[in-house]
Amino acid sequence: MTDKSTQPRVLIFDTTLRDGEQSPGATMTHEEKLEIAGLLDDMGVDIIEAGFPIASEGDFAAVSEIAKRARNSTICGLARANYKDIDRCWEAVKHARSPRIHTFIGTSPLHRAIPNLDMDQMAERIHDTVTHARNLCDNVQWSPMDATRTEADYLCRVVEIAIKAGATTINIPDTVGYTYPFESAKIIRMLLERVPGADTITFATHCHNDLGMATANALAAVEAGARQIECTINGLGERAGNTALEEVVMAMKVRNDILPYRTGIDTTKIMNLSRRVSTVSGFPVQFNKAIVGKNAFLHESGIHQDGVLKNVETFEIMRPEDIGLTQKNIAMGKHSGRAALRAKLKELGYDLADNQLNDVFVRFKALADRKKEVYDDDILALVADEQTNDAHDILVLKKLRVICGTEGPQEADMVLSIDGVDHHIDATGDGPVDAAFNCIKMLFPHKARLQVYQVAAVTEGTDAQATVSVRLEEDGRIVTGQSADTDTIVASVKAYVNALNRLIVRRQKSAPGDDVKQVNYRDAG
Amino acid sequence: MTDKSTQPRVLIFDTTLRDGEQSPGATMTHEEKLEIAGLLDDMGVDIIEAGFPIASEGDFAAVSEIAKRARNSTICGLARANYKDIDRCWEAVKHARSPRIHTFIGTSPLHRAIPNLDMDQMAERIHDTVTHARNLCDNVQWSPMDATRTEADYLCRVVEIAIKAGATTINIPDTVGYTYPFESAKIIRMLLERVPGADTITFATHCHNDLGMATANALAAVEAGARQIECTINGLGERAGNTALEEVVMAMKVRNDILPYRTGIDTTKIMNLSRRVSTVSGFPVQFNKAIVGKNAFLHESGIHQDGVLKNVETFEIMRPEDIGLTQKNIAMGKHSGRAALRAKLKELGYDLADNQLNDVFVRFKALADRKKEVYDDDILALVADEQTNDAHDILVLKKLRVICGTEGPQEADMVLSIDGVDHHIDATGDGPVDAAFNCIKMLFPHKARLQVYQVAAVTEGTDAQATVSVRLEEDGRIVTGQSADTDTIVASVKAYVNALNRLIVRRQKSAPGDDVKQVNYRDAG
Repeated sequence: MTDKSTQPRVLIFDTTLRDGEQSPGATMTHEEKLEIAGLLDDMGVDIIEAGFPIASEGDFAAVSEIAKRARNSTICGLARANYKDIDRCWEAVKHARSPRIHTFIGTSPLHRAIPNLDMDQMAERIHDTVTHARNLCDNVQWSPMDATRTEADYLCRVVEIAIKAGATTINIPDTVGYTYPFESAKIIRMLLERVPGADTITFATHCHNDLGMATANALAAVEAGARQIECTINGLGERAGNTALEEVVMAMKVRNDILPYRTGIDTTKIMNLSRRVSTVSGFPVQFNKAIVGKNAFLHESGIHQDGVLKNVETFEIMRPEDIGLTQKNIAMGKHSGRAALRAKLKELGYDLADNQLNDVFVRFKALADRKKEVYDDDILALVADEQTNDAHDILVLKKLRVICGTEGPQEADMVLSIDGVDHHIDATGDGPVDAAFNCIKMLFPHKARLQVYQVAAVTEGTDAQATVSVRLEEDGRIVTGQSADTDTIVASVKAYVNALNRLIVRRQKSAPGDDVKQVNYRDAG
Repeated sequence: MTDKSTQPRVLIFDTTLRDGEQSPGATMTHEEKLEIAGLLDDMGVDIIEAGFPIASEGDFAAVSEIAKRARNSTICGLARANYKDIDRCWEAVKHARSPRIHTFIGTSPLHRAIPNLDMDQMAERIHDTVTHARNLCDNVQWSPMDATRTEADYLCRVVEIAIKAGATTINIPDTVGYTYPFESAKIIRMLLERVPGADTITFATHCHNDLGMATANALAAVEAGARQIECTINGLGERAGNTALEEVVMAMKVRNDILPYRTGIDTTKIMNLSRRVSTVSGFPVQFNKAIVGKNAFLHESGIHQDGVLKNVETFEIMRPEDIGLTQKNIAMGKHSGRAALRAKLKELGYDLADNQLNDVFVRFKALADRKKEVYDDDILALVADEQTNDAHDILVLKKLRVICGTEGPQEADMVLSIDGVDHHIDATGDGPVDAAFNCIKMLFPHKARLQVYQVAAVTEGTDAQATVSVRLEEDGRIVTGQSADTDTIVASVKAYVNALNRLIVRRQKSAPGDDVKQVNYRDAG
């Protein structure tokens, strides 16, 4: 075993809640953001980018609350290069034990054209805004957006200005997922060599996966001297996503011989976080995803029979336990009581309030009556489903009966509560899901379009619970709803209702706030 | 525009049908393999690794038939380091206009221990088997499996032996997905510098994505002098999969400024191949997959409204059209006739026999009656579904009626034909899918376990067809079934029946053949 304590420490900056959450369709609720932030904090993430406080009241509230609750992580908020954004960001993060302001501006020719600033004007803006941020907060990160397409001389110039103005971290974003390991390293090396004061601050790397190289690009930057990696769980993020946290962390662990760096991440918490982020974002992880895919540790079962492979290292470079992937144990039986459920939830990382525990317990008992074996994943799905419901929901499914099959027409008969009043209706449709969705459309007319509908079984076996994700789009607003049930059709309708409830909330938010979010989230690298 | 004609040509070696198909659960039928091979040939893949001829009669038949049909691609088969494997491989590939034999042996210390050969004995084995292959075929590829964990001196020694024995391509596999770009390049550079004759043959790179770096590792090898990349569509492959064809090809196209290499790939065929491989393998592509994910080209729609971004290059480094991703057009209406359907199918790359066209036409009319808009993707789903059925199927779903909803129990009533005889039954279950699957279990008892169940909508809209993938496991045999229907429950049952039909075929194959396949597929890097 190598002594890692003398190796350089690489900071892990997680932006699942900011750059990840901006993926079209990955919007998370306030409660989901708090939960994910808590799990990231527990896992040892050094800095959590919790959101973009000026984008909306919801973002502001989430960043503030995450800042208040954080135990170990530094909490960071995003701000454009103007005083109003920066002030609003500070108002949200200042509650943290360790706050950070992250401000940015696009420095490449294409991006300089947008605010129509020339090189000197932009340099002045950078000086002023970073100085302003540093007057509020000791911990300031600055990013030249689209750095990998910015002229080398100009990049050196603006980085120097930001350092002189008080930035403590300089982040180099590959905004369009364009760079290549050699080039990614070259930029960091150039900045360290050419910029006065570069040795007094931390360089960060922020990569996107458009050409499939985000992980290699981030690690190449570290080799060149970057000491902070910006990443997301499951590589969540716009387009092809960001650098995946699980990949960079495990690469430095598995290949510590040639990547001698240490992080503060407890890797055994990776798998649980991956599952939770997949569920709340509605973005499934593909079977052959590195580290966290269902197949990542799956070998053809014939292998184990033939007795040839005595040494597991022959084909395994890491152990499933390293990422917290344990054999699926039967978690609970129908005779398990409330205390056992509470203990199990605690083991899975949940500390529920009494009323929430009661709700989950009722559903657990109902599930245990129906399903032969109740696994950890079943319990996680129950909790997730419970947490998607909100006391303020306008629409609630009360009752559903569907008839379907090869002989059509498929029929649905439904009781739906709208604002506390029950409505009864029936409808036909092309398939049971369409019939049920038609009932809802008749009772609650809307013009949202179903963009994505997908179902996955939570565990093995034909009696497994199904989790359904539904993505709706209305006037450019995209929302995702989810639900779990052993009845696929019931789960589908509950997911659709969940998405509509989120859409109602989004409609109530002011449109200008949404616009700010859409434009500037993108602008942040 | 750069003149690419003077740039070095990198050969694309696709192993979707060999290393991809060996992913647990990704087994393809004979017809599916022929279809994918035809599409790869059309796309301009230089070498298609079509299978492992000695593994089973099915593999042998598929490689032989693909060899006979290939118009442009070289057809390659895999063989272990023994005469029997190599002879069998030659028997299959010799039908090709341009055949290749690919033989391999594990050269790392861990792999040398398996056949219990010392360094000298293994060197002799390599000499003898490559000589034997070259006596049969002018085009011989040799791979030292687990090359990235093989001692440098020994690697140079065995590569030299293989070249002297007549190998024309030397492939360097990173079997466990362990390497890093710098290291990947270093190995190729070392071999080119140290091995006599290295300049007379082609070096290939074969990477796995366990640490998320397969694409960068492959390109680093090319920079060092490799001129063949081994890859699969969607990065399909065991564990975290292989290098993704679409990523390396598009990276060399988009970053041709720093990766000045050309390939023979028609990139506009990438999207169609990605969809077909996803469907036949039952491996969905995640939304944020580079190049081919649903979100890869998706921007927040707000952007287009604010008018700020006048230049599409601000955030797009490639155009959707480059990979054949076009706007979803309404393909056909309910008044479209047989000739129009035939023309549309031709446009989509299908040339069906008259009886198949008739079957698809009947289903198309039924769909057009129910669904407002019929898209290209709908037509593709219909053809795919038609092609999963086989005249020799033992089990056929004749009729299904299901009642489900919140009030349970869920009931199914079914007519299932077994070996041509109709059986009627009803059953209850935990959810409509479980109830219907219980009917099948009662009529056709089996101990296969449902490992994966997933549903995705083919197009947008609540009336979309759903495609269902079902993965079953029985005694180590893993099969995937699929189906599409506007009724999710009908599609689920048809997918389950499809999987059971495949399982029946697998059961009939000899167990020893399966064992060879399981052990040695893995051994091939």
